[in-house]
Amino acid sequence: MDRSLKSLGLNSYHLGWDNSIEPRLTVSSGDRIQIDSLDASGGQIPRDGTALQVSSMDFSRLNPVTGPIFIEGAEPGDAIKVSFESLEVADWGWTGTIAGFGLLADDFPESSCFISKVGDMSVELPFGPVLPKIPMIGTIGVALAEPGIHSIVPPSIHGGNMDIRDLGEGSTLLLPVAVAGALLSVGDPHAAMGDGEVCGTGVETTATSVIRVELLKAAAPRSPVIESSGISQRTGASLLTTGIGPDLHRASIDAIRSMIDELVRRTGMAPLEAYILCSLTVDLKVSELVDAPNWVVSAHIPLSVIR
Amino acid sequence: MDRSLKSLGLNSYHLGWDNSIEPRLTVSSGDRIQIDSLDASGGQIPRDGTALQVSSMDFSRLNPVTGPIFIEGAEPGDAIKVSFESLEVADWGWTGTIAGFGLLADDFPESSCFISKVGDMSVELPFGPVLPKIPMIGTIGVALAEPGIHSIVPPSIHGGNMDIRDLGEGSTLLLPVAVAGALLSVGDPHAAMGDGEVCGTGVETTATSVIRVELLKAAAPRSPVIESSGISQRTGASLLTTGIGPDLHRASIDAIRSMIDELVRRTGMAPLEAYILCSLTVDLKVSELVDAPNWVVSAHIPLSVIR
Repeated sequence: MDRSLKSLGLNSYHLGWDNSIEPRLTVSSGDRIQIDSLDASGGQIPRDGTALQVSSMDFSRLNPVTGPIFIEGAEPGDAIKVSFESLEVADWGWTGTIAGFGLLADDFPESSCFISKVGDMSVELPFGPVLPKIPMIGTIGVALAEPGIHSIVPPSIHGGNMDIRDLGEGSTLLLPVAVAGALLSVGDPHAAMGDGEVCGTGVETTATSVIRVELLKAAAPRSPVIESSGISQRTGASLLTTGIGPDLHRASIDAIRSMIDELVRRTGMAPLEAYILCSLTVDLKVSELVDAPNWVVSAHIPLSVIR
Repeated sequence: MDRSLKSLGLNSYHLGWDNSIEPRLTVSSGDRIQIDSLDASGGQIPRDGTALQVSSMDFSRLNPVTGPIFIEGAEPGDAIKVSFESLEVADWGWTGTIAGFGLLADDFPESSCFISKVGDMSVELPFGPVLPKIPMIGTIGVALAEPGIHSIVPPSIHGGNMDIRDLGEGSTLLLPVAVAGALLSVGDPHAAMGDGEVCGTGVETTATSVIRVELLKAAAPRSPVIESSGISQRTGASLLTTGIGPDLHRASIDAIRSMIDELVRRTGMAPLEAYILCSLTVDLKVSELVDAPNWVVSAHIPLSVIR
């Protein structure tokens, strides 16, 4: 079954999850939709963006998502299956620290801005490293059952700002529906990102995606489930640092601090640059969480990026 | 510089980190050492092991490690660099749940035992799935500065029971030295394991490894650092489940429960079998830990294992 492509443009965005927002598009199960997405700043950071522009962003305009899309027949208890058919991002993107935000907000208290060139296959950072280009959607979710407006920043079991690197071309996502019509929205595209997104931003960019939406009756998963194409997986030799202790969040901080030490020592880059690089290409894994009282978090970077 | 191979056999083991244990071998920087390691049960689970044998194990004999090895000239503040030259495991291994132990100890309160066949390239579970064989060392560390005996179960910043999948052939490990001579010990080999080792055991087996030890003066990392060969990385299409909420440990539990749901639904395997499979081949990643108050943990399984 192939249907004509519906579309939602850059003007159809909203700022917060709110199940009273009027749908901008109504689709049936099986429909394909082309979606244009703003970057996470809502267009506030230009191609020559600076730290000052990051620090003076209007925070009420952050994290716009395109939608909502009403899926006919969707009811609480159902699942929405989203297939990512294609995902095109712009030829540049920004990454920055935002004062008070990010895993190491205490270590890097100032705002910063780094503009990367995005090519056909790779992303070139302004301070040297070249990363594989892995276009992905940071935020995709459905409206919550609770009335009122809810920040788009934290994710929930209904999806939202999950920042899972596998959410790109060739992958499918199952989301549990919470309200009639589901009210699906999509935004926050990245040209590259590491699992953890530790500084709080990826290579933030605009995108045009084509998704296909299907309704699965009474098939709500307890939390989002993804089938990944594997495109986002990196292979080959890598450098690992560790954080070890009784709290996984603290262990994650320790692992990233240790990675920053290593990157600075091995490459001579600045600590802030190393932190940015961690956010874009370091993956955080839980290596051990059964040998009480201490757990192990490992931070992985492909050696190809720093050699 | 190549030196004659020194060796440590199965009798040279100890049960706990204790810096007063007499060294079983003294080596110089640059020496290569062949090390035989018992399995994590200390030989209590035979090739035809049963759940009863797991439940009646003498817990005081668990987690033996071969050593300690005194490295001449090593002092606190130095680093020991261990290169894994080769790692051979036995042709079988056991995996089980141990009452009261493991990430989902409440869901799976009974002890169990599953014996796998370990071939040249793969590990065959008794209930069907075939996994890539990825020999690794679960426990490697140096003695702690604090006097007395310390359990080998929890890892520390001086290493120990880290259960990092990359600790195998072709990789190198840097450990911070805490006492004179470092007192390195090695054990807990696995033929396969998923990052997280969620049920508490991998494919537990015996092994013979060859390592090379180097002393790096005044180069202690703040926590163990690894250069991985990449051999342990899996590629290709995968299934992801998620856990989303304010606590990474709870989110890990949720992600694994959701993965068990999916495995049971897709393959018809029993929930306990799915839990065991998670421990052996599911990797836990921290996808997001900056968008307060909710974090995302994703659990990844290669689709090749369940198709």
